[in-house]
Amino acid sequence: MTGDVDNGWHPLSRAPPFEQGATCSGWKRSVQGSCPMAPQYAPSLRSRLAPLLLFLQIGFVVIFAFCIEIESNIKADGTTFSSFYPEFQDVNAMVILGFGFLCTFLVRYGYSATGFNLLVAVMAIQWAIILRGMESWYYRGKIRVDLRSLVVAEMCTASALISIGAVLGKTNPVHLVLIGLLEVSGFVLNEWLLQVLLKVPTENSIMLLHVFGAFFGLTLTWILFREGSLQPFEKEKFDRQTGLFSMLGSLFLWMFWPSFNSVLVDNDFPWRKLGAVCSTYLALAVSAVTASAMSMLSSPRGKLNPIRMQSCILAGGVAVGVSMSAVRQPWEAMTIGFTAAVVSTAGSQCLKTHMLLAFECHDTCAVLSTHGLPGLLGWLAHLLLQIKACDDHTTAIRFAVFHICTLLLTIAVSLSMAVLTGFLLKWNLWRPPQDKKCFDDQAFWEFPHLAVNK
Amino acid sequence: MTGDVDNGWHPLSRAPPFEQGATCSGWKRSVQGSCPMAPQYAPSLRSRLAPLLLFLQIGFVVIFAFCIEIESNIKADGTTFSSFYPEFQDVNAMVILGFGFLCTFLVRYGYSATGFNLLVAVMAIQWAIILRGMESWYYRGKIRVDLRSLVVAEMCTASALISIGAVLGKTNPVHLVLIGLLEVSGFVLNEWLLQVLLKVPTENSIMLLHVFGAFFGLTLTWILFREGSLQPFEKEKFDRQTGLFSMLGSLFLWMFWPSFNSVLVDNDFPWRKLGAVCSTYLALAVSAVTASAMSMLSSPRGKLNPIRMQSCILAGGVAVGVSMSAVRQPWEAMTIGFTAAVVSTAGSQCLKTHMLLAFECHDTCAVLSTHGLPGLLGWLAHLLLQIKACDDHTTAIRFAVFHICTLLLTIAVSLSMAVLTGFLLKWNLWRPPQDKKCFDDQAFWEFPHLAVNK
Amino acid sequence: MTGDVDNGWHPLSRAPPFEQGATCSGWKRSVQGSCPMAPQYAPSLRSRLAPLLLFLQIGFVVIFAFCIEIESNIKADGTTFSSFYPEFQDVNAMVILGFGFLCTFLVRYGYSATGFNLLVAVMAIQWAIILRGMESWYYRGKIRVDLRSLVVAEMCTASALISIGAVLGKTNPVHLVLIGLLEVSGFVLNEWLLQVLLKVPTENSIMLLHVFGAFFGLTLTWILFREGSLQPFEKEKFDRQTGLFSMLGSLFLWMFWPSFNSVLVDNDFPWRKLGAVCSTYLALAVSAVTASAMSMLSSPRGKLNPIRMQSCILAGGVAVGVSMSAVRQPWEAMTIGFTAAVVSTAGSQCLKTHMLLAFECHDTCAVLSTHGLPGLLGWLAHLLLQIKACDDHTTAIRFAVFHICTLLLTIAVSLSMAVLTGFLLKWNLWRPPQDKKCFDDQAFWEFPHLAVNK
Repeated sequence: MTGDVDNGWHPLSRAPPFEQGATCSGWKRSVQGSCPMAPQYAPSLRSRLAPLLLFLQIGFVVIFAFCIEIESNIKADGTTFSSFYPEFQDVNAMVILGFGFLCTFLVRYGYSATGFNLLVAVMAIQWAIILRGMESWYYRGKIRVDLRSLVVAEMCTASALISIGAVLGKTNPVHLVLIGLLEVSGFVLNEWLLQVLLKVPTENSIMLLHVFGAFFGLTLTWILFREGSLQPFEKEKFDRQTGLFSMLGSLFLWMFWPSFNSVLVDNDFPWRKLGAVCSTYLALAVSAVTASAMSMLSSPRGKLNPIRMQSCILAGGVAVGVSMSAVRQPWEAMTIGFTAAVVSTAGSQCLKTHMLLAFECHDTCAVLSTHGLPGLLGWLAHLLLQIKACDDHTTAIRFAVFHICTLLLTIAVSLSMAVLTGFLLKWNLWRPPQDKKCFDDQAFWEFPHLAVNK
Repeated sequence: MTGDVDNGWHPLSRAPPFEQGATCSGWKRSVQGSCPMAPQYAPSLRSRLAPLLLFLQIGFVVIFAFCIEIESNIKADGTTFSSFYPEFQDVNAMVILGFGFLCTFLVRYGYSATGFNLLVAVMAIQWAIILRGMESWYYRGKIRVDLRSLVVAEMCTASALISIGAVLGKTNPVHLVLIGLLEVSGFVLNEWLLQVLLKVPTENSIMLLHVFGAFFGLTLTWILFREGSLQPFEKEKFDRQTGLFSMLGSLFLWMFWPSFNSVLVDNDFPWRKLGAVCSTYLALAVSAVTASAMSMLSSPRGKLNPIRMQSCILAGGVAVGVSMSAVRQPWEAMTIGFTAAVVSTAGSQCLKTHMLLAFECHDTCAVLSTHGLPGLLGWLAHLLLQIKACDDHTTAIRFAVFHICTLLLTIAVSLSMAVLTGFLLKWNLWRPPQDKKCFDDQAFWEFPHLAVNK
Repeated sequence: MTGDVDNGWHPLSRAPPFEQGATCSGWKRSVQGSCPMAPQYAPSLRSRLAPLLLFLQIGFVVIFAFCIEIESNIKADGTTFSSFYPEFQDVNAMVILGFGFLCTFLVRYGYSATGFNLLVAVMAIQWAIILRGMESWYYRGKIRVDLRSLVVAEMCTASALISIGAVLGKTNPVHLVLIGLLEVSGFVLNEWLLQVLLKVPTENSIMLLHVFGAFFGLTLTWILFREGSLQPFEKEKFDRQTGLFSMLGSLFLWMFWPSFNSVLVDNDFPWRKLGAVCSTYLALAVSAVTASAMSMLSSPRGKLNPIRMQSCILAGGVAVGVSMSAVRQPWEAMTIGFTAAVVSTAGSQCLKTHMLLAFECHDTCAVLSTHGLPGLLGWLAHLLLQIKACDDHTTAIRFAVFHICTLLLTIAVSLSMAVLTGFLLKWNLWRPPQDKKCFDDQAFWEFPHLAVNK
């Protein structure tokens, strides 16, 4: 911690020029000196982030004031509330703590990973509540909020947080907030289209959040690609301590995933809920074992890779979540968990470098192998299981066509929203961080009393 | 971690003189050498803390043996238990983990922050159960304990933990345990007075814990002021790693705050409970966004201050909790959350230094701006909302008078108990730590196998 | 973190000889050079762990496919599910997070402590579900899984995780997985024997997990004793940061222990459940206070020992859990908690060194004093309380005989399974780590992007 030479702001210059420093864009900056006087400090975000947040937040409060009220038509015995609340809190813990701490493995980016995760999450949740209530507002003039709408909003937000995993470290919080809002808009639009065009029920369309989020994030990181990321970033590293924080986030996600997959199952069918919990739990268990074995097999020195293992143990939960409504037996869930862990480990081993070199796609948190591939696998498992369960060919083919259309539509909406978002973000107005400031908390956080010599 | 020169105990001196070292009081010690031979080691607490704890604990067990039994008159269907238990555990996690880890940002005081928090919490909970049951014991001869009484005891304890936040680092665990017990006594007395004199229901009077705790803590730190704290303490710093632990505690508080505010709402009115959860959740979300924006606006370099942000994101939960019974619409809660975050950030930015220089009040964890100001704001919001909801002037004025009396009584009890506690603590018998030993785990914890060169 | 000289694998040698390095056994290796050319790198586990895990996991999936289905016969109102689920998640958090982070105090063994804990837990849970369903499979052809069977499987797993605490750091993950599976087999066998021979109900026999696990672990570490452990291991240390992670795990266990002790109490008797929760909670509180006082009294310098305190605050939960079905009054639980903390602190103060020198028993996580002694104390308290409650001598004597037989049978099964496991593990096929590689993550985890100079 000593000798913090790349501090970015010279302590002797008393008045850092805030409104400067974005003259030389961080994106696609050529390495050999088109920007010879690159500023040593990161561009200040005060004139960008603070007004944006305040404007949006005041706007949200105004919209809530006119359109939103709390659901008053609930059963007097309170069982609905008390049976729903613990699962709501589990999902809340996953979104706030789990996703927040998952990315703290970046050694100098822990505050940003947790802090910006919270910031994006709370913005996206409010926005998702508004967007998802638009239909009800159109017909009834009011949007009613209850625990279920909060949970659905958190799951839409989870989709945005997955996207952010792909661009984390190479963007600033203004970008992240915009990504969060636009990604949630796209996801809610996709859910609405799926419902209107293909009659996909909400429980199934919501679970495509992994696929939607992963492809959104990957397209975005492809558009925002910068030459500088071909070499490893100077600060894109992890160390022992921060790895343990990341393990904590990962275990929070792992533990509460059964709640994530079962929370939207209707409480009137407790056996389906029990099935969802047990299936997810067993799939996660198989996934953890398989991810360890595969990580060891794929390592040249026969060791476990902590970061890879932390994300691959979650693959089973993702895949079973997507195929949940077709899984009937525990062994089906376990087989899906097994395959998901194999695919996810293989993906994170082989694809990350190839994605970077061949497709210019720098994927910070490996969202492709953690959420994208297991999500596609879950979609495939859903298809196969449902076809197996069909009695006649006509129903099976009909289902297959609908199911394939669901995926294609989701990917199409995801890619087009991501392209839109990407071009909006390339605008220099948002002051992208320079390559040297990537993956560094110092660009956004001040550490006034930082202990130099502990 | 190398070169731990201020270890405090010279490794060559085999027998550190335990019973010495308190000859020179830590309080109000003049800087220019009235105590020229200040001992290098912290005074041992073995002869103070251990007997005190054992005596109190055995006393508590005896009281429990004669007066307390477990509630046996509960509904046979178990819904009361199972609907209450998850919220009880959330509050438990806030008190033990949330408050415990919130103060771990102090770089050399992490063990003390979490360990003494646990110690004070468990003492105060037992004491609160006894005190709050005194009335029932007087009339029925027995105190009955159920989950509700445990939760109320934990909330009284939360009030004590807030007070402790103001004096943390400058006191020893004997002080902290005494503060905890006396603060809880004062708080229970205040609740009883409010109920008897002003007919304030328990749900409302308990929520004044933020105001009571903050003013108690501030008065205490004013009485216990020492000259040495005018300069920053040598070890009152934070670093990256410990900041993440603090973020963890802060997020635990943030996540479970809806349970904290709704747990005492009667289960027979599930819509009120749902309202409390949704309002708190939205207020916390708005609070997190606003705190980030304000933190960036108020920083000279346009950056976020992690410690300030960690405490200010909680302001919305505090303010909405205090005004809970008058909040009807989500936008009211969101506006309260917005204002609370603005007030809290402004307070922590401007007041901390002024409090220290003008009022000689060193507030370690900024309890004034985290709990005090948002609590007062919530009280004001309660007043305004209730007046707005009143049909005629008479009711409104009557309510306003009662409401103002409630606050004045609370502050009066808080200040007088704090003065009493302060003078008890100034007694040198308790061996206050020297200035050099403030904010240092080494004074109280032994690290036998501490890794020097990792 | 700089100058990682004992890295174990020389960075210049490009092809570390994987299949070598186990020629010189780690066990009972004489210090004075019977193995003069000890390899510098740890033996690779790729050819051991990965096939073992994949073989077992595929085997489990096949068994699940043929024998296991999800319980479909549940009440339609869903109250069983929703009242059970929060407690299930609490126990899950204890097993995965609590036990996982409890051992992270080992400064270079944090990844192994949490990662291998997860690995052993998920293997043991699947195996416990299968084993405990054997009887039902024999009679009905199918094993039905519901939340209760998952919770019981997690509690059997907790028993294995306790055993592992005794040998942690001196074994490799292959050993740990084998220990986990064999320990669970022994524990399920013991439960079945207790039920068949002595008609002990499941709630009581499961709670002997602390005694079973502790004695299993101690026997194992006695059999696997190596000369090298007479001196302290080079890396068996803790530091400030990792100690806070350990505190986190400890607090998770502490907070959720009431759920652990009450989860198996039948929901049809909510007052017994409330009693279990309140008793455990109060016992834990007393235990925390007493452990602090005793830790301070027993330290030569009057300071608190963080690691000792972290384990001793849990003693009350252990002891009350074992005696749960006989505890009627809060003060009984509190007295048990008090005694348990005294015994546990005294045990960890005095016994650890004696166990090592006199019995050649190196107990990494002090499972004897954390689980063994409080478990025995709880057994004794159960005996005394039940005798006190008996009306006539015949019933009392009858109960005492049965109760003593229960303990003796449990210890006998525990010791014999441990001897069996120990001799299986001494087989060099499993490649025990060398003494120099004990307590070191580097032997099993790769840190490719490890930040050298942060």
